Amino acid sequence: MNHIAKAVEEVKALLGDRLSTAPAVLNTHGENETYFPHTPPDAVAFPNGASEVSEIVKICARHNCPIVPWGVGTSLEGHALPVRGGITLNMQNMADVIEVMDADLAVRVGPGITRERLNAELRATGLFFPVDPGANASLGGMAATRASGTTTVRYGTMRENVLGLEVVLADGRILRTGSTAKKSSAGYDLTKLMIGSEGTLGIITELTLRLQGQPEAVSAAVCSFPSVADAVNTVIASVQMGISMARMELVDPNSMKAINDYSNLNYPLEPHLFLEFHGSSAGVAEQADIVGDIAAENGGTDFQWTSKTEDRTKLWHARHNAYFATKAQFPGQLGLSTDVCVPISKLAEAIAETQADLEAHKITGNIIGHVGDGNYHTLLFAPPEDKDALNLNLKLAGRMAERALRLGGTVTGEHGIGMGKMKFMEAEHGAGWQVMAEIKRALDPQNILNPGKVVEIN
Amino acid sequence: MNHIAKAVEEVKALLGDRLSTAPAVLNTHGENETYFPHTPPDAVAFPNGASEVSEIVKICARHNCPIVPWGVGTSLEGHALPVRGGITLNMQNMADVIEVMDADLAVRVGPGITRERLNAELRATGLFFPVDPGANASLGGMAATRASGTTTVRYGTMRENVLGLEVVLADGRILRTGSTAKKSSAGYDLTKLMIGSEGTLGIITELTLRLQGQPEAVSAAVCSFPSVADAVNTVIASVQMGISMARMELVDPNSMKAINDYSNLNYPLEPHLFLEFHGSSAGVAEQADIVGDIAAENGGTDFQWTSKTEDRTKLWHARHNAYFATKAQFPGQLGLSTDVCVPISKLAEAIAETQADLEAHKITGNIIGHVGDGNYHTLLFAPPEDKDALNLNLKLAGRMAERALRLGGTVTGEHGIGMGKMKFMEAEHGAGWQVMAEIKRALDPQNILNPGKVVEIN
Repeated sequence: MNHIAKAVEEVKALLGDRLSTAPAVLNTHGENETYFPHTPPDAVAFPNGASEVSEIVKICARHNCPIVPWGVGTSLEGHALPVRGGITLNMQNMADVIEVMDADLAVRVGPGITRERLNAELRATGLFFPVDPGANASLGGMAATRASGTTTVRYGTMRENVLGLEVVLADGRILRTGSTAKKSSAGYDLTKLMIGSEGTLGIITELTLRLQGQPEAVSAAVCSFPSVADAVNTVIASVQMGISMARMELVDPNSMKAINDYSNLNYPLEPHLFLEFHGSSAGVAEQADIVGDIAAENGGTDFQWTSKTEDRTKLWHARHNAYFATKAQFPGQLGLSTDVCVPISKLAEAIAETQADLEAHKITGNIIGHVGDGNYHTLLFAPPEDKDALNLNLKLAGRMAERALRLGGTVTGEHGIGMGKMKFMEAEHGAGWQVMAEIKRALDPQNILNPGKVVEIN
Repeated sequence: MNHIAKAVEEVKALLGDRLSTAPAVLNTHGENETYFPHTPPDAVAFPNGASEVSEIVKICARHNCPIVPWGVGTSLEGHALPVRGGITLNMQNMADVIEVMDADLAVRVGPGITRERLNAELRATGLFFPVDPGANASLGGMAATRASGTTTVRYGTMRENVLGLEVVLADGRILRTGSTAKKSSAGYDLTKLMIGSEGTLGIITELTLRLQGQPEAVSAAVCSFPSVADAVNTVIASVQMGISMARMELVDPNSMKAINDYSNLNYPLEPHLFLEFHGSSAGVAEQADIVGDIAAENGGTDFQWTSKTEDRTKLWHARHNAYFATKAQFPGQLGLSTDVCVPISKLAEAIAETQADLEAHKITGNIIGHVGDGNYHTLLFAPPEDKDALNLNLKLAGRMAERALRLGGTVTGEHGIGMGKMKFMEAEHGAGWQVMAEIKRALDPQNILNPGKVVEIN
């Protein structure tokens, strides 16, 4: 019996039915949303709480068995694939709203809860959690990948919206980081160290999240432009003027077609900005006027307003589904969603070069993104059997990453590193990538926590 | 010749006149703003850039010589005192604005520049850097202590306003963290790990800071209340309603007296809120109306507006000088500025208990603070020869820290740990304090970077 089998046996004794080795369960946890090979774990555990996670980790530490935390499997860089085998921890039994602290605009949740479920549960409080990646991801996964979304331009990423964490370390210690206080200078910021560490430094077993009050007024609008460059220049000018926008999304013509087809909409197939403003009635009107003027100067059409809540929900649902909508245009093909972020002053240049690159290589790819943050994606597809097409896509993604670094940006704005972007880490961080490995080695010397991701230590 | 003397000799050979062992220079660098004993270093170096800092660190690493970075010496917990001797690095030659990136609302600066100097240099750009601790601190020191200030309620702490750093590590490697992009998911957040590490993990040699556009409209007001509790309840209600305030400061009657005397002002000796609103003209008026209504419900007077820029500057200058103003009330005495931060829902309880504690022990102390963040201070003084008085103050500070933890807060909102708050670290962080030591050991195994602060590793 090998070391992993021994760990599985001991965890089985601890959890009983909540440790599964059923092929269907293993297969589900070996899937991914992109082009990585199917990689099932040796077993899937369904823990009920931090102390059980701690026990599991101690067993795995004794047997040198890898452990991979798993939320709902929506990550885009193979983060949750057990590439060295071992036990996947499915957090579905740790998915509750534990405590709403409405007087402190905060909430404690389990890592398995999804963002839509959380906001559904918060509805009666008048509060909401803003961070909204495209997929209906789990909050634990969102913290682990330092996710963001359409509202980040106003409310920030997971980095700004997690007040504290409970984390199980590689030796089973249970750590509580942060507090409900708004700030602290008490030593190293372990909360921020764990956010974005993708399960390689600890397993998130609880999150304390900052909430926002529902704004008094919300207005959403769409606006089309003669070219992507015109739309981007509108964004750059608005950001540089310090306009407070709640959402500012670029959707190119290919993405518009996918969204129209998938969500049964009928927008013109032109470059669009999808916009939203939050604030008081007067504030929203004021902001919208200014952005409207900037858009007009760049050849944009009048804003087409969606004032009813249900229309607005439909609009943003369509935007959130852009990846799946585009996937539906390429049935059976493997998707690749690139994700770079550049300083706002370089956004026009970065996107123009990316467009030219797609054309030069005759690749059909969408460009879409959270452009108010300088963050954009191309969505690329290839038939599973066509290695040349996949390689062409990967090379384009590589050039996008190099371009982002040359322009002072980052190879991933919000998707994270996982396996897919390890190859760019040295170029982005230099000595910093070694430092990350030194931290990993200090906190997980056996390399049992999601090994093979983010850092290389053996 | 001992190990420190050897290091000093080699650094002297490297820097010549820019390494000083003159008694007056050593004495200046052994001072502190509070009650810790005078602790001069063995030598003070004045490096000209990161590569020179790197050479100094390599020399110190060879000889096991402590190194303490030093900005302008305004910290309040003994952060910059060389408690194990060694070489202090005075950053005054690395105090330039290196590059204003106005199109990206960012600036690169040397660590020695002060916040007032930075904003003076930015004036022509229409941009400003918001974080404003009481003292005219250096930006390197502010990052190292994760400082904040009166505008943090709107613009955040140093944590939210540093985009990237250049840092020299304990082995002399020069690290660049972050970028000018607004967000990134590329691995562990080393920028945030360095912010608040107080020179124990690396020496900051450059900062890339986020800037803000000057708001279209700025209005400041003061308002007095029958009691501190009434003022605090106004703050709590405003925060819970999500009003966007740029500043919201509590100043108690003792502080008002000190401020009046020091800045030649004539405010009534009542509990006050000092307020400021930033935004569009309409937005500012709207916010001020709402807060005005809340204040009136809590017995507050009408807002007394300071609309002229010079009056506003005078108002905030007076507030920033509160510590020195209070110090002037106790000539020759040793100051102790406590600094706790609690969840906003607990602020009234925390401050009321602190008031009662001051009264019960017959201690004359001010209460003042950035109450919109749940952060407040008591300013306490004792004659240098009166150990009993100092101990009474320290015990009160200890009870404030315990109270903050009991109420779900932190023992320091913005001053940091230094030497003064090491004793509370285990209570606040539990296993987290061990984890901090594990990270320290990984990155500075010889413990040469500001030893004796934040963590205990030998």
